[in-house]
Amino acid sequence: MENFNLHISTKIYFGKGQITALAGELKARARRLLIVSGRNSARKYGILKDVIGQVKKTKIPFWELSGIYPNPHLDDVYEGIRLCRQEKIDFILAVGGGSVIDSAKAIACGVKYSGDVWDFFTRRAQVEDALPVAAVLTLAAAGSEMNGNMVITRTDTAQKLALGTEILRPVFSILDPVYTYSVPAYHIACGVVDIMVHIFEQYFSQDKATEVQDRLAEGLMKICIEHGPRAVATPKDYDSRAQIMWAGSLALCGLIGKGKKTDWATHYMEHELSAIYDVTHGAGLAIFSPVWMEHVLNAKTVDKFIEYGRRVWDVPSQNDTFKTARKTIAKTRSFFSSLGMPARLRDVGVKKEDLIKMAEKACRHWGGNLGAFYPLKKKDVKEIFYAAF
Amino acid sequence: MENFNLHISTKIYFGKGQITALAGELKARARRLLIVSGRNSARKYGILKDVIGQVKKTKIPFWELSGIYPNPHLDDVYEGIRLCRQEKIDFILAVGGGSVIDSAKAIACGVKYSGDVWDFFTRRAQVEDALPVAAVLTLAAAGSEMNGNMVITRTDTAQKLALGTEILRPVFSILDPVYTYSVPAYHIACGVVDIMVHIFEQYFSQDKATEVQDRLAEGLMKICIEHGPRAVATPKDYDSRAQIMWAGSLALCGLIGKGKKTDWATHYMEHELSAIYDVTHGAGLAIFSPVWMEHVLNAKTVDKFIEYGRRVWDVPSQNDTFKTARKTIAKTRSFFSSLGMPARLRDVGVKKEDLIKMAEKACRHWGGNLGAFYPLKKKDVKEIFYAAF
Repeated sequence: MENFNLHISTKIYFGKGQITALAGELKARARRLLIVSGRNSARKYGILKDVIGQVKKTKIPFWELSGIYPNPHLDDVYEGIRLCRQEKIDFILAVGGGSVIDSAKAIACGVKYSGDVWDFFTRRAQVEDALPVAAVLTLAAAGSEMNGNMVITRTDTAQKLALGTEILRPVFSILDPVYTYSVPAYHIACGVVDIMVHIFEQYFSQDKATEVQDRLAEGLMKICIEHGPRAVATPKDYDSRAQIMWAGSLALCGLIGKGKKTDWATHYMEHELSAIYDVTHGAGLAIFSPVWMEHVLNAKTVDKFIEYGRRVWDVPSQNDTFKTARKTIAKTRSFFSSLGMPARLRDVGVKKEDLIKMAEKACRHWGGNLGAFYPLKKKDVKEIFYAAF
Repeated sequence: MENFNLHISTKIYFGKGQITALAGELKARARRLLIVSGRNSARKYGILKDVIGQVKKTKIPFWELSGIYPNPHLDDVYEGIRLCRQEKIDFILAVGGGSVIDSAKAIACGVKYSGDVWDFFTRRAQVEDALPVAAVLTLAAAGSEMNGNMVITRTDTAQKLALGTEILRPVFSILDPVYTYSVPAYHIACGVVDIMVHIFEQYFSQDKATEVQDRLAEGLMKICIEHGPRAVATPKDYDSRAQIMWAGSLALCGLIGKGKKTDWATHYMEHELSAIYDVTHGAGLAIFSPVWMEHVLNAKTVDKFIEYGRRVWDVPSQNDTFKTARKTIAKTRSFFSSLGMPARLRDVGVKKEDLIKMAEKACRHWGGNLGAFYPLKKKDVKEIFYAAF
């Protein structure tokens, strides 16, 4: 195991009706509040009403920034920064899923920086200070509610870039599975895939002696496999929504990734897809993930696939290890299909002529070697894009 | 899943040489420092020297309280409180295992309380304030380095009582597996059992729909089973020591117990044993745990044992569910034996005439119903003590 530092500083309120904790938490921390939310659903389904009811109890003055897009846009971040400065905001509450929370985080660090917030994403500057952020979660997927990560899209250059910093872990997050009841089945499914692939990115590693992380990762994968289909099929199945919601937060809070080299090649490739096409992140991951697995399967990686298959999918080891590994990958792909996910880039409207452009962009940002489990060269990335088509 | 709040506020520094983080952390937090340590080993094996080297770098004035016993004594806590008040200590650093960290916590809350610190343990008062505590861990067992729990023994009344409060989670803990190299094999084994039984206490529950917690618990049990014997057999096997150390912290930080009713009957019974006899906590647990399992096995609990057996020990389910469950319990017992643990109370010098007294004391503190998975009545507790003899 590699050395690591881990500080999961986010306080979690989990369960039905936990929104009642909001007033007390805000009262203790906020003086002038910005509430960031998405396009419609938090308002339509009464979640924003619950939030504002709590905020009004505190008598803290508040402003609203709503209409945050999925694959959230840098322009909205700029607008939030402007608003925070103008109104002297000192606390940001995100009400939504990963896109809303990520936007809130980008605003929070942008406010405290004299330059362009985009500098953080292009690595021209480092986050050194930020307003405190908290979250009321409405979609289990990104894990942003319990970590310091964010992904922002700049539309004029079609760049979608990620950033992680401990400073931006939310100070508290309220996770009420009931708030996910109104999410359409397709987006619940995309969330399950997102969680599952977050786990893959950390699980598939050449590091040895990371059994604690790997056993926990396997447990969380089992949760996705057992409760994902129920959560998708039955909107008001509290139990399965709760398992998926909690698994989603734990999957990316550092528990299963600290102490080892993680991969993230699949995410980098998907980011190039959803930077151009209007594809839900989870759906993009569902396409790339099994193709990536097939591509990186070789003599040096096969054992990890065997272990994954045996422990997570109960695929018995056979003499032909590659056959066993491929069976496991097929299980993964058919699980995603069973959730209603697309299997090919062509299924989500991608044009063949864009493949090479996306592949090249994926490599450009990261110096040509993508991932750690099997470092992808430019040639590999192109092959994966074509194989995924 | 029941509603829960979880705030794992302890910052973890994990790995070889992480002691170098100590000076910076102390500099940011402490003005006058108390270092609490055990009887000998931290000094003998140079760990205390590493710590004091770091402290000296900070030029923070420090005092030492050493000689803390396993099953730590209230008298030492009083002495620590006196010293803190006299020297106006504002930060306590524990260097040791659970006993040392627990003592540091009890001192930390005792200093801020005008009454007798024992009031907290008898529930006559609640902890409302405490000095900050941090830990340099030298033994994987109690999990005290990442939670707000403590267990203190009052020798004049032979009471060993436990207390948990969020206020007392260490602000940071340094976990270097190398610091456990000098621990004798028997105490490593006792630590593995302690970790395993901490997991049992939270895993065996009548709650439904706590799959996330249960899957993580099963993963941590697998770590104990696979890495425990290696950690016991090979002092300098960094990898196994690291797995056990990290599993021990995660086992009791709230991750696998929040959101469900936990049991703790085995611990309550063991506390009565080690309050009177000089038995290492883990060895006492190794005796009681399988006997408790056999006692609580019935039609209402059998399914959980089957699940435990299948998922943790690969015991295939048979038609005769009780036979399968008993096979699983036997596996648990023989695992403890393989680690060199005693199997019976008589093996650790317990006199038969003390059984009834210990059983009655175990019930007295908790109103006669011990545990939640199968609430033990006084009669049950007595039977378990006799069966364990």
